[in-house]
Amino acid sequence: MRVFVDCDPGIDDALALAYLAACADVEIVGVGTVYGNNSVEITTDNALRLLALYGRPEVPVAAGAGRPLVQPPNLAGHVHGENGLGGVRAPEPTARPVDESAAELLVRLVRESPGEIDVLAVGPLTNLALALALEPRLPELAGRVVVMGGAVQAPGNVTAWAEANIMNDPEAAEAVLGAGFDLSLVALDVTMRTLAGGRWLDDLAAVAGERAEYTHRFLDFYVGFYESVLGERACAMHDPLAAAILVNPELMVVESVSVPVRVELNGAHTRGATVADLRPRPRADDRPAVTLVTEVDADGFLKRMLDALR
Amino acid sequence: MRVFVDCDPGIDDALALAYLAACADVEIVGVGTVYGNNSVEITTDNALRLLALYGRPEVPVAAGAGRPLVQPPNLAGHVHGENGLGGVRAPEPTARPVDESAAELLVRLVRESPGEIDVLAVGPLTNLALALALEPRLPELAGRVVVMGGAVQAPGNVTAWAEANIMNDPEAAEAVLGAGFDLSLVALDVTMRTLAGGRWLDDLAAVAGERAEYTHRFLDFYVGFYESVLGERACAMHDPLAAAILVNPELMVVESVSVPVRVELNGAHTRGATVADLRPRPRADDRPAVTLVTEVDADGFLKRMLDALR
Repeated sequence: MRVFVDCDPGIDDALALAYLAACADVEIVGVGTVYGNNSVEITTDNALRLLALYGRPEVPVAAGAGRPLVQPPNLAGHVHGENGLGGVRAPEPTARPVDESAAELLVRLVRESPGEIDVLAVGPLTNLALALALEPRLPELAGRVVVMGGAVQAPGNVTAWAEANIMNDPEAAEAVLGAGFDLSLVALDVTMRTLAGGRWLDDLAAVAGERAEYTHRFLDFYVGFYESVLGERACAMHDPLAAAILVNPELMVVESVSVPVRVELNGAHTRGATVADLRPRPRADDRPAVTLVTEVDADGFLKRMLDALR
Repeated sequence: MRVFVDCDPGIDDALALAYLAACADVEIVGVGTVYGNNSVEITTDNALRLLALYGRPEVPVAAGAGRPLVQPPNLAGHVHGENGLGGVRAPEPTARPVDESAAELLVRLVRESPGEIDVLAVGPLTNLALALALEPRLPELAGRVVVMGGAVQAPGNVTAWAEANIMNDPEAAEAVLGAGFDLSLVALDVTMRTLAGGRWLDDLAAVAGERAEYTHRFLDFYVGFYESVLGERACAMHDPLAAAILVNPELMVVESVSVPVRVELNGAHTRGATVADLRPRPRADDRPAVTLVTEVDADGFLKRMLDALR
């Protein structure tokens, strides 16, 4: 399996990279970076550090968009720390970013290997929207696409109704979700039910080795944020759950529905909302459907995530 | 208990009136009518017929708004039949509407008996918004208000995201939900989990007497519509559930949350959506909260509804 990762590390992005890096049958063909959890300069530096840490230093990293298509950026230092990794200084990077932008690298890779490269997108969708603008055949050229983003029937996390990756660039998300990709959407509806709790964190703390130790330290800050929200020692496993769904959909996805998803761009109280027609008898709709994941094997995922860090 | 009912009968409105009429301790002090399930001329005529049928012919009926505050009306003949009662000709009315409008009657009644009159609103909220405009102290003068309307975490019924009563007049709903009433919102989130199924309908068919027989006939058309949506012989008990919640909140409401609810007026894909901040740690908000009912005793309600028709 050959995977391009578009991300904004970010603590849960780190776990997604750790998950993929531990899959022997996954070749990470490239990593694109984007603003989001922090500035693109910092997320790019983090991507390089994390690939070194998790044993994939050879993966090309391409810096991507530094801001959304239309609106100003809104970074998430309060969730991921001032350096995007909970204030923990990860090992020095062993490489530098490539000269291409993230969108250009993605377009080049899928043109070179049509249908063979799957995409994991766990940041704002700006790079994917740019790649789609550069190469309108991207939905046919890419393999499967798994996006972490949105909140369909669950509350949002940056507003009452919107999830951070979508809200960071609603216009880009609307373009990507409507483009006709073979796309699975991993929204807060499932990620907020996939919490790593105190027991899991303790188990991680007991795992020896640099990868597990750093990861546990990254999570400290992140868990602190979630604890202030949830009232318990736990954190949501947004991005690594999406990674696991890309690698093993048949194991991870318990239930899903095929439905067009739109992003509200104009609402006074709903801008950034992901809207799907989940009525028993939905309206006819010629917008391409995506696979909205509605139930996952959270326990199975958490076990695999821990194994990935052993 | 003294109750003013604002409604657009409508088949489930008929059941709400039947429910209230069967409560010996409930005085229905007035009924206001509104366009919605049909034109206001027809809903007014139906209200008069239903009050005669259910044994409350003395209740004053005031015709209300014939159209929404801002947008054009959108009636629901396909759900409630061409005459609003499933094509069944209910007994002739024994009275005529009063000379006041619904909003004027409501304002006069609450001024005469401040704090003593509860309001059941099971149609578009146009009359309540007009009453609020006529009398800004309405939230203090009225008692409790129970509104059937909205779809907060559930799919809508007229669009993917919006419920009919709210979507019929989003501007009116926004004014009413923000006005500071002691208001409980009974949304599709609970009414679509309160279905009268085949067994209940059979039980109703076995009840003797004019009230049960007419009601069963009204429901025939309504169940036909729901069957085409749900794929099973059943129908949602929207309005009578709201009536039961007004009369016996302590028995009917299993769970609720106090939260401000806004109506999206500007969305391209979300106009008419009812938006609430249901995050574990909601944002500070100085808009008045309403009581959003999140779980009900559906079985208990269905039993009481059947008893009301015996």
